[in-house]
Amino acid sequence: MPNEAMQLDRVFRALGDPTRRAVLGRLSSGPAPVSELARPFDMALPSFTQHLAVLEGCGLVRSRKSGRVRTVQLVPQPLQAAERWMVEQRALWERRLDQVDTYLKDLKEREE
Amino acid sequence: MPNEAMQLDRVFRALGDPTRRAVLGRLSSGPAPVSELARPFDMALPSFTQHLAVLEGCGLVRSRKSGRVRTVQLVPQPLQAAERWMVEQRALWERRLDQVDTYLKDLKEREE
Repeated sequence: MPNEAMQLDRVFRALGDPTRRAVLGRLSSGPAPVSELARPFDMALPSFTQHLAVLEGCGLVRSRKSGRVRTVQLVPQPLQAAERWMVEQRALWERRLDQVDTYLKDLKEREE
Repeated sequence: MPNEAMQLDRVFRALGDPTRRAVLGRLSSGPAPVSELARPFDMALPSFTQHLAVLEGCGLVRSRKSGRVRTVQLVPQPLQAAERWMVEQRALWERRLDQVDTYLKDLKEREE
């Protein structure tokens, strides 16, 4: 399997969790320390850092430690690749609907 | 957790597999019988129908049996919801980049 497909697998699976999506949503408005990111969630820190590890593992975030504070930031490229896949699907599907539409119009015109 | 978030979880997880994405890609150009959908994949039919069950379970496809032939079609709404989530994230992130940009410009102008 090409790398790009494996990368999409991991990104989509990472997105299939509400905590991870919420973290990405928060990071869309700027980097944040782990402690701040964890605050809204009712879970133990180790569970939360596992979610961060999934996000970091597929390249959706990157983190840097400075002293005792680890700061996390969004990496938008993998999200863009996933969005591109979805947009391509939609383009295919909309083209097909157009074709069906044209076909139905032709049929109607011939009947008239 | 609201239903919408649960639905997004299931859709993103369903997308995290190359076979399932390929099936959706094929269905973008029109409905197809299961046997035709399965043909390009080097896997046993039961494994393939499990993938279809995942897609059907989260509402990405729907199927109808007529005689001995089960025909599968794409249901685009769940994909659109997932795409909407991605577009929203990107909008947040781009707005933030604009703000950083404005800030840097201001800083530069003050220095000059």
